[in-house]
Amino acid sequence: MFTDKLIEKVIKCRNHMVVGLDPRLQYVPRHILDDVGGSQLPGMGADKAAEAFFRFNKEIIDNVYDIVPAVKPQIAFYEQYGTAGFECWLKTCKYAKSKGLLVIGDVKRSDIGSTAEAYSDFYLGNNEWSADTDCITLNPYLGTDALIPFVKNCGKNGKGIYVLVKTSNKSSADIQDLDSGGRKIYEHVAELVVKLGEDLIGKFGYSSIGAVVGATFRNDGQKLRELMKRVYFLVPGYGAQGGTAEDAAACFNKDGLGAVVNSSRGIIAAYMSDGYKDKYTGKEFGAAAREAALVARDDINNELEKAGKIAW
Amino acid sequence: MFTDKLIEKVIKCRNHMVVGLDPRLQYVPRHILDDVGGSQLPGMGADKAAEAFFRFNKEIIDNVYDIVPAVKPQIAFYEQYGTAGFECWLKTCKYAKSKGLLVIGDVKRSDIGSTAEAYSDFYLGNNEWSADTDCITLNPYLGTDALIPFVKNCGKNGKGIYVLVKTSNKSSADIQDLDSGGRKIYEHVAELVVKLGEDLIGKFGYSSIGAVVGATFRNDGQKLRELMKRVYFLVPGYGAQGGTAEDAAACFNKDGLGAVVNSSRGIIAAYMSDGYKDKYTGKEFGAAAREAALVARDDINNELEKAGKIAW
Repeated sequence: MFTDKLIEKVIKCRNHMVVGLDPRLQYVPRHILDDVGGSQLPGMGADKAAEAFFRFNKEIIDNVYDIVPAVKPQIAFYEQYGTAGFECWLKTCKYAKSKGLLVIGDVKRSDIGSTAEAYSDFYLGNNEWSADTDCITLNPYLGTDALIPFVKNCGKNGKGIYVLVKTSNKSSADIQDLDSGGRKIYEHVAELVVKLGEDLIGKFGYSSIGAVVGATFRNDGQKLRELMKRVYFLVPGYGAQGGTAEDAAACFNKDGLGAVVNSSRGIIAAYMSDGYKDKYTGKEFGAAAREAALVARDDINNELEKAGKIAW
Repeated sequence: MFTDKLIEKVIKCRNHMVVGLDPRLQYVPRHILDDVGGSQLPGMGADKAAEAFFRFNKEIIDNVYDIVPAVKPQIAFYEQYGTAGFECWLKTCKYAKSKGLLVIGDVKRSDIGSTAEAYSDFYLGNNEWSADTDCITLNPYLGTDALIPFVKNCGKNGKGIYVLVKTSNKSSADIQDLDSGGRKIYEHVAELVVKLGEDLIGKFGYSSIGAVVGATFRNDGQKLRELMKRVYFLVPGYGAQGGTAEDAAACFNKDGLGAVVNSSRGIIAAYMSDGYKDKYTGKEFGAAAREAALVARDDINNELEKAGKIAW
């Protein structure tokens, strides 16, 4: 069961944070750009950008693999560079896996029938060319048809999914917050997610069919926590997007479990930010990322301790 | 403006049908599998599958490019084969474009902020490595944030999008049909789509911000046609999925315009189906696809004529 594996790693690392591997050229230090011969940012071309991203990711992974349970590479940042970028995303997943990390592929795919099966077999399948992802994110707008082929592979292959329920962006309200029968649309989606995961509850009492719940709307997080007690949350929006540790803590259950919190920019680009940039050079971006990951870990853990939500 | 270009091609071809390039190994004739050295279906490996798909697509395109306005390659069928598949999808788009076809990338992406911008710059951008797509499909669950970066590139680069409004699958009802304030969720999405497209209305009176509206729910199609008079529809669900020409015709305006209708299996795998398999060998699959495309064209045109919806 995916969520069992995740919780075991969370407890082992005493860390509920996952690192969002969302590389952008402006985060990549000069020495890597020079190494790949691509200093003429941004006109360096797709192949060099992809090569720079992989070197960047590899060093981030080397610096955090022993202190975080998982990484979450967002595929858009790679896919934008075409085949070279897509290949870099796959290599990043493979490398993270080889270091013992769980890999949450942030792909937000949505399709039906044989199309959904094709995605599912690639991202959650066992073909020799399948991606090295343990889990992916999915969009629910097309309904259960669009989720069931993935749920099946979760059961068969010990994989997981996180379905978008309430996202961290402001205009998530446009559709997700509409009221239907006294409940918001995201509550209806929550109900679907609970049902889809009923047969995939593991030894810690959590399903491998999870939900994306943004840290930026604390009341919604609390409400969803009540509605989906056995559903694990993937929580974006902490840090750069404005969500605090207190907001994120609302997404946890009293057992100190129930959520992993993502941070991307705040960790991978720490060396460029206040509090780090005077201490670390560009060449030390990996060490800065490690420190930032530990700071984020402690930030969440302290908040959970205050709230009496302790898992260990 | 994308929709102007599309309508010009529709009128030139007198054809409202687009061909869904959704290859599957079971549709690829034996001689192509033999040629790529991949007869041991399904264990032929990703590289050979991708090579077989490209040869298959190329021959379909060669047989229909002069009679249809556009093709719609569904990326999942390619992406499932990893990098080789992704590359094949890009090559297919490029080849279709080189033959003068418009290319609708059926990618159903959904993301926000810088992530949405990354997708938008790849699929609707002008970088030398950008995909050769004129238009893509998008999922609206994350709200307008997730659409605006694409709308911007539509204006800037003469591209288009089709936003999922009411999809053709049965469980589209799960979310899309929920009632909010006396209107279904898909009607709320329709309203967003209308607003987003207001500044992108071309010389035929149609916006380049379009909507996906399934042929399988005729009443919904009619209602949406009323709600979104200046929005072009991409209509899946005709043929193999059960939608009829009469259902599809409900998605057109009285001017005989307003929708393109997709058919995938019914065209690309025609040579295997009743009415064709006794007439065409596997080697003649391209000619069968051409005949099926002409039959589908006439089917839709006849129905539009009956309904008095004539564009030429």
